Amino acid sequence: MKSILTKQVIRWRDAHPAPTEDSLVVEEPLEIRVGDQSLAVVMRTPGHDFDLAVGFLYTEGLITSSDDIGAIAYCEDVEETALQNIINVHLTNGQVLEEQEGWQRNFHANASCGLCGKMTIESVKQDIPPIKSDIQIDPDIFYQLNDRLRSAQSVFEATGGLHAAGLFDEQGELQIVREDVGRHNAVDKVIGQALLIEQLPLDRHILMVSGRASFEIIQKALFARIPVIVAVSAASTLAVEMAQEGKVTLIGFMRGKGMTVYSHPDRIAELP
Amino acid sequence: MKSILTKQVIRWRDAHPAPTEDSLVVEEPLEIRVGDQSLAVVMRTPGHDFDLAVGFLYTEGLITSSDDIGAIAYCEDVEETALQNIINVHLTNGQVLEEQEGWQRNFHANASCGLCGKMTIESVKQDIPPIKSDIQIDPDIFYQLNDRLRSAQSVFEATGGLHAAGLFDEQGELQIVREDVGRHNAVDKVIGQALLIEQLPLDRHILMVSGRASFEIIQKALFARIPVIVAVSAASTLAVEMAQEGKVTLIGFMRGKGMTVYSHPDRIAELP
Repeated sequence: MKSILTKQVIRWRDAHPAPTEDSLVVEEPLEIRVGDQSLAVVMRTPGHDFDLAVGFLYTEGLITSSDDIGAIAYCEDVEETALQNIINVHLTNGQVLEEQEGWQRNFHANASCGLCGKMTIESVKQDIPPIKSDIQIDPDIFYQLNDRLRSAQSVFEATGGLHAAGLFDEQGELQIVREDVGRHNAVDKVIGQALLIEQLPLDRHILMVSGRASFEIIQKALFARIPVIVAVSAASTLAVEMAQEGKVTLIGFMRGKGMTVYSHPDRIAELP
Repeated sequence: MKSILTKQVIRWRDAHPAPTEDSLVVEEPLEIRVGDQSLAVVMRTPGHDFDLAVGFLYTEGLITSSDDIGAIAYCEDVEETALQNIINVHLTNGQVLEEQEGWQRNFHANASCGLCGKMTIESVKQDIPPIKSDIQIDPDIFYQLNDRLRSAQSVFEATGGLHAAGLFDEQGELQIVREDVGRHNAVDKVIGQALLIEQLPLDRHILMVSGRASFEIIQKALFARIPVIVAVSAASTLAVEMAQEGKVTLIGFMRGKGMTVYSHPDRIAELP
């Protein structure tokens, strides 16, 4: 399934219309099943679907390592429009959702945006211990992340319609980049891939997101123990509070040699 | 409750750090109750909370007009951190959620992002009839929407962290503008306000959103019968498909005198 589709559009330039072709980012539902039972549907851009499914299960607290995963496959016994839009994850211990009432309740009320559907304020915040990581990042490394992330984005270039998330090591080398129409999906894809290649926990890494830093991004990064989060745009108050409590270094407005450090600046190496 | 908070940050400019104050957009959970029972929690920017609660109920299909609403109030019998973060909507017919099993199931699985938590692909798309509206919008009107929306945004200017949604009449006059950290919330706030001032259906109006046009934005606009949607950025394939089916004129990349028309260009008045 493609990440980009070409459509006929009418493009107005300088007040004059002309029919043309445009590249659009694909948005399709992905149904995630565990042990053949439906768990949730997320709207996503096709591509790296296994990463997304695994990352989703991980950042929702349903699996803790690749050892929990027995098999992952697209469902094939479905009508054509649903082909490659339904993923089934079989857990190694053969658990299914019916047997795990707690899981089912959790998922029913808790999907890709981290909290949609949760019923009460008390259920929104998950209790995740603070991150311990003594990495020190040179400021010069931060200044390069933006260009490195952007140049690794393949779909955005064509469509202008995608969020990206990039995982960098402490030297600023890009390890994983994933794109999606949904900002949380891009992060789930990165974390899912890291889990599949057994890189978790990511306590010596930097996560960069192309947009803003919201509460849910911090929550997902906390699950994967990522100590440094960099956003191209602004952070919300709740994102900053959560980063402070979780001992995450949160940086926003990362542009050129400028940035805004919201929390735990101690991981930024001092100037010589 | 405030929409903006000031925080101490460290701002790096040209590679040099300096402590300073920064304005952050507030993100707080809002719990929506109907008849004293919890329905959903959405992360939102405080401000126009009644609009948001009402718009949410409307675009989820739980109410159809202001006649359905008996009373709206913040819960006051709560701990201090939850003050102004819980809204209770009483319906005129006294219905509560327990009596409406279908509602409860719907809401439990269906929150502000339009589909998060839904369990199967079949449940994602709602069946909404196409829009009939013969309005004709002069291209010159479209070129002005962007500036009008931006100049009406109060919080974005300070924080750079907000989405906006604006409702314009067919002459391009701004009727309602709402801002929120969540893109769907901004649209729900606009539609909720329109419902409260009894402007629904909005079949001679234009909805403008500051970001991208996703599936859920189109779905919410369809509920309110809005025939023309303008986005500053890209549209996804599913947004375009839904706009085509729902007979919505969908425009993206609205910048200066340029725009991309994805569907139903017949509502754009021909050049003289």
